[in-house]
Amino acid sequence: MKILLIGATGTLGTAVGKTLSVRGHEVLTVGRSGGDLRHDIADPAQVAEVYAHAGQIDAVVSTAGDVPFKPVTGMLPEDYLSAFHGKVLSQIELVRQGVPRIAERGSFTLITGILAHEPIPTGSAAAMANGAVEAFVRAAAIEIAPQRINAVSPTVFTESLEDYGDYFPGVPPVGLAEVAQAYVRSVEGAQTGQIYAL
Amino acid sequence: MKILLIGATGTLGTAVGKTLSVRGHEVLTVGRSGGDLRHDIADPAQVAEVYAHAGQIDAVVSTAGDVPFKPVTGMLPEDYLSAFHGKVLSQIELVRQGVPRIAERGSFTLITGILAHEPIPTGSAAAMANGAVEAFVRAAAIEIAPQRINAVSPTVFTESLEDYGDYFPGVPPVGLAEVAQAYVRSVEGAQTGQIYAL
Ligand SMILES: NC(=O)c1ccc[n+]([C@@H]2O[C@H](COP(=O)([O-])OP(=O)(O)OC[C@H]3O[C@@H](n4cnc5c(N)ncnc54)[C@H](OP(=O)(O)O)[C@@H]3O)[C@@H](O)[C@H]2O)c1
Ligand SMILES: NC(=O)c1ccc[n+]([C@@H]2O[C@H](COP(=O)([O-])OP(=O)(O)OC[C@H]3O[C@@H](n4cnc5c(N)ncnc54)[C@H](OP(=O)(O)O)[C@@H]3O)[C@@H](O)[C@H]2O)c1
Repeated sequence: MKILLIGATGTLGTAVGKTLSVRGHEVLTVGRSGGDLRHDIADPAQVAEVYAHAGQIDAVVSTAGDVPFKPVTGMLPEDYLSAFHGKVLSQIELVRQGVPRIAERGSFTLITGILAHEPIPTGSAAAMANGAVEAFVRAAAIEIAPQRINAVSPTVFTESLEDYGDYFPGVPPVGLAEVAQAYVRSVEGAQTGQIYAL
Repeated sequence: MKILLIGATGTLGTAVGKTLSVRGHEVLTVGRSGGDLRHDIADPAQVAEVYAHAGQIDAVVSTAGDVPFKPVTGMLPEDYLSAFHGKVLSQIELVRQGVPRIAERGSFTLITGILAHEPIPTGSAAAMANGAVEAFVRAAAIEIAPQRINAVSPTVFTESLEDYGDYFPGVPPVGLAEVAQAYVRSVEGAQTGQIYAL
């Protein structure tokens, strides 16, 4: 398949991109500062540009989502708005604008994360964004069939423990290889409206 | 207790206000076009005005949330943004600005809804908003203790079946009296981080 991968230069995106290539897919990468196409998907107009330049696409795979981390009382409305644009609206726009453009039986795979259900201090904007994306995925699934949409909701990556491990005491991490398989499952499988929590 | 009730003129808010008053609470009502205080909580500056005028408050109870209903492909980015402001940021701001202002053991009770988990066509913005609020509630709960926060997540109201029943075929409705009890449970009980689904 021809797959549009958002965030290919990131920790997760690098692993997902390699795995999809090894499985024989053609991967077209998107990022703000790296990738085949350089665009900020937090801006709906740039999502349109991505699709205008991408050509025919079978699957859209997102590994990109930026959210601020601060205590609730240290947040400003702008912080929650930035989480909304950086992880929610960005991924919704990939879907909304993608539905009329990708293959008739194409799929969307979005990224959320464990904070939707297992919060940590300073994680309220991340939780909010992940919960929003997961509910959107369930809702969009029943409208866009036979196109499909799923989300991958990982715990902290084993490979990110050095950076974020202190925020997840006692929480079992997951290796990127396993997370990448959840993307394979979503792209090559037949399920829709699923949240792959791992 | 002295309770700030947002949306007291609405279907749900009327029932919640009556129930809380019958239980002996002093209820201060807020709405855009009706209530003791007339403010739009979708505007963070007006949430500040609400708290400035409300005086000492023991519990904040929200029954207000506006979201657009349209097919995914009929939505615009502005529609998702309006759902975010109308139901997510509005309620987050009640909490964020309320934490330093309400009683030391005060509580927040927010409104979400069944669409977070059981979607209907045209409900993707509502689902997104409800999922966002539910995840925020879980996340904020672990930060704001001993203050508490819960959400009430009802199915369609029996009293709203005439208006919305066609969108919920075969879905069991819930009476407003029962939904109002979930608010009582949140306000007078001791639990936090709960989503009361009914
Ligand atoms: N790390 C973990 O342990 C962990 C665990 C669970 C969930 N997650 C979630 O997984 C996602 C990726 O995490 P990660 O650790 O791989 O992050 P990362 O290393 O920072 O990578 C993010 C990637 O997305 C791109 N990107 C970000 N915002 C973008 C935008 N608006 N438009 C286009 N590209 C954008 C970045 O490239 P540019 O900066 O060049 O745009 C980069 O390639 C995040 O949403 C995170 O919440 C991470
Ligand atoms: N109806 C159902 O069957 C059902 C089922 C499950 C969940 N829910 C949820 O329950 C909530 C209330 O539903 P409802 O049917 O009671 O709605 P409603 O009758 O339209 O009442 C909404 C109330 O909130 C106020 N309000 C709305 N936005 C506001 C804002 N930005 N600032 C201040 N006040 C605001 C409205 O007054 P003003 O217009 O004067 O501001 C009104 O008093 C909604 O979030 C809805 O999604 C409803």
